[in-house]
Amino acid sequence: MIDRYAIFSICLTISLFINNHQANCQTDEDAFFIKNIYNHTLADSKAYDWLTVLSTEYGARLTASDAAERSVNYTKSIMESLDMDKVWKQECTVPNWIRGDKELVAIIDSKSKGTVFIESTSLGNSIGSGPDGVYAEVIEVKGLDELRALSDDEVNGKIVFFNRPMDPTQIRTFNAYGGAVDQRGRGPAIAGSKGAVGALVRSMTTLLDDVPHTGVTIFNEGESYIPAIAISTNKAELLSELLRKETVKIYIENNAQLGPDKTSYNVIGEIKGSTFPDEIILVGGHLDSWDLGGGAHDDGAGCVHSLQVIETLKALNYKPTRTIRCVMFMNEENGLGGATAYAKESNEKNEFHMAAFESDSGGFTPRGIGVGGKTEVFESKFQNIRPWRDLLGSYGIELTPGGGGADINPLKSQGGLLFGLQPDSQRYFDFHHTKNDNIDAVNQRELELGAAAMTSLIYLLDKYGIDGAE
Amino acid sequence: MIDRYAIFSICLTISLFINNHQANCQTDEDAFFIKNIYNHTLADSKAYDWLTVLSTEYGARLTASDAAERSVNYTKSIMESLDMDKVWKQECTVPNWIRGDKELVAIIDSKSKGTVFIESTSLGNSIGSGPDGVYAEVIEVKGLDELRALSDDEVNGKIVFFNRPMDPTQIRTFNAYGGAVDQRGRGPAIAGSKGAVGALVRSMTTLLDDVPHTGVTIFNEGESYIPAIAISTNKAELLSELLRKETVKIYIENNAQLGPDKTSYNVIGEIKGSTFPDEIILVGGHLDSWDLGGGAHDDGAGCVHSLQVIETLKALNYKPTRTIRCVMFMNEENGLGGATAYAKESNEKNEFHMAAFESDSGGFTPRGIGVGGKTEVFESKFQNIRPWRDLLGSYGIELTPGGGGADINPLKSQGGLLFGLQPDSQRYFDFHHTKNDNIDAVNQRELELGAAAMTSLIYLLDKYGIDGAE
Repeated sequence: MIDRYAIFSICLTISLFINNHQANCQTDEDAFFIKNIYNHTLADSKAYDWLTVLSTEYGARLTASDAAERSVNYTKSIMESLDMDKVWKQECTVPNWIRGDKELVAIIDSKSKGTVFIESTSLGNSIGSGPDGVYAEVIEVKGLDELRALSDDEVNGKIVFFNRPMDPTQIRTFNAYGGAVDQRGRGPAIAGSKGAVGALVRSMTTLLDDVPHTGVTIFNEGESYIPAIAISTNKAELLSELLRKETVKIYIENNAQLGPDKTSYNVIGEIKGSTFPDEIILVGGHLDSWDLGGGAHDDGAGCVHSLQVIETLKALNYKPTRTIRCVMFMNEENGLGGATAYAKESNEKNEFHMAAFESDSGGFTPRGIGVGGKTEVFESKFQNIRPWRDLLGSYGIELTPGGGGADINPLKSQGGLLFGLQPDSQRYFDFHHTKNDNIDAVNQRELELGAAAMTSLIYLLDKYGIDGAE
Repeated sequence: MIDRYAIFSICLTISLFINNHQANCQTDEDAFFIKNIYNHTLADSKAYDWLTVLSTEYGARLTASDAAERSVNYTKSIMESLDMDKVWKQECTVPNWIRGDKELVAIIDSKSKGTVFIESTSLGNSIGSGPDGVYAEVIEVKGLDELRALSDDEVNGKIVFFNRPMDPTQIRTFNAYGGAVDQRGRGPAIAGSKGAVGALVRSMTTLLDDVPHTGVTIFNEGESYIPAIAISTNKAELLSELLRKETVKIYIENNAQLGPDKTSYNVIGEIKGSTFPDEIILVGGHLDSWDLGGGAHDDGAGCVHSLQVIETLKALNYKPTRTIRCVMFMNEENGLGGATAYAKESNEKNEFHMAAFESDSGGFTPRGIGVGGKTEVFESKFQNIRPWRDLLGSYGIELTPGGGGADINPLKSQGGLLFGLQPDSQRYFDFHHTKNDNIDAVNQRELELGAAAMTSLIYLLDKYGIDGAE
């Protein structure tokens, strides 16, 4: 058999002179294989069934919870059923945040409204008010800059209410999220440093509804912990309306706490490459979720997408030339303990992740795949894979600059490319970090199309690498 | 003020030599206006509220039903609130199909299963079994060709069961629908012509569930009406399984009927063009729906998309140069009475629809806009509007060959371009023609993005026409 890479190289050179829309002559073979990937995934895949089990029988998988630990073994058993060369658990250290059984936020004795209970949920990694609660006047700010501009006297003893909405005019809702989430991430700690006794954060969604959205907040070493709670957007609107008319005092009582760190695990499965075993292609998602819903989109979808990549390649009897590794990362939501452990061991072993692909934006119809990496790597390699647009474009998949994911970003320094699945984002923040992130919010075909897009890219990465003509 | 068309023309000529990705120099102005269209639609539009009312307070709007007639007046009142130059109702003749109160399909005394009731729904424009029902042996076929290959003796006195599924490996589900729906459209009549006493059709969906999907079936003049009923995909699977093992007899009783034709109405609103009033740009959807659900996606979404185009242009104080006409067509589902009346009057008046844009593929995130027309028109005009891809592409909208819609296709002969919104299609056939096509299946942002995409194209059509540099 003639070396396919030699042919590829020659054809690439010729084709550049012939047709810049067809950057390699494997098009027919590749188109055929990718069509088979889609056929298998849409007709015979297991992703949706796996996700149903993961998000219902295991359900909410908060790091360090029993369900998270059990889901480690569940996904390990799936990998073991897929005839991979090696499957193992990788130890990692993770925070042990416990929500507690009390979460109460209420407006007390508003002149116009009386007592109003507010739908709320404590923010991850925050600690509670203690049994005596916190009762204080509320001040509203639209963001961190507005808070920083206040004197400590103006903040001291108050509850700070962060109420800048996600911008509904952003087309990609992740951009709207990115434009608002600093309030949740750092708002409470900054408020605490100015003497605030509590922080309320408007939920991260463009919807106006009664569902609070949790998520992590960050108190750095030495910063004062204060109760930090997300409230529903409807009640954020109400509270803001009241604050325009009168002084509002709020009572907060919750008992979240941070226990001592625990040991948990990433789950890893590997198919050894036949020709370039030292060039690793990683595909993964994160196994942990928040504790309110089933973690179906965030990130059960990414987990089963990644497992489905392996199942499909196996079903099509594909023998990779490079090493393909499937990783279920632990603790993306509130600590990145799994990602940290993975990158540390990988670097110690001088591994090279030629490519790492994370799915952590939900199980909706894929629109594109983001591509990233160190600036010089991205600039030299992206052009080599751009011709794949023609193959992927038939399935509505664009290759666009800007890829990666929280769990794989630490691998950037190894000099490979990072990829992130970009599903349609319109519905994501209707469910994100809420009790509603369940299997009924996932459409089977949309989920499967994500897995097929990922498999197609992994196939091309494995077959051609990222260096162009070799 | 310098004539913008003169500038456009000069710039277009120059730009062709400079940069073929920027086919006119109005890009900044257009990009700005289109951004304003999206901003308004995502932050301040009425489409979702209108659709909520239309699909719940009016609900199922089967042609010739009271709800359909009332929704004529509802959408007319919306148009009247939008300060259009003229709003009117246009008379049309429509069929008066009445489902009746009895729809029973049951497997009687299967050896292995006993009596099994089958979720079913009579097909539109079919007539019922009468009170004595039909009781006969079932034969399964996978399509019209397989039926035609049978002798009349093999079919005579039987119930024909059409069971070719929609192909799940099609990426666009409309292609899967197109590949299966001939069974529903013509299967019953062809079965009747071969002596069958009834027809069962597998529901048009890729889902396996218990929900039957109705839709029109066509008996041409002189053909024998037989009971024609859609059954759920789960029961289609069961029936097929039983037929592999044993003879199955089915009992059908339903009392659908076709009453005498009725008079109904299209609703039309118009903004007269300032410069080219005789060049009409139509935007519309169909007001009627099936009678099982609220007709939210099919085609309430298309109606409110079209109304929202007008609301947005008005809100942005845009004064069209061409005549923009918004049309709510009646009776797309089972007769096209509204479309026929509209085209007839338009042709009699020698009108020229430079462009007609129909939204009738649901309220999901738009992926593209299909463009069609008479072959010679399409071939000469499509290239003139292709440069708009760059403006629309920022919003994830492609311009692709193949546009139109059942209601606007009769206007093709006038020599303009036809357009069809192409929303993401993955979920459409989960709801299509069922009791579940309700407002809770519609995401507000996805709906709004469809309206914004349509408004953007209508704006460009109005500003530049379809003839390229003028």
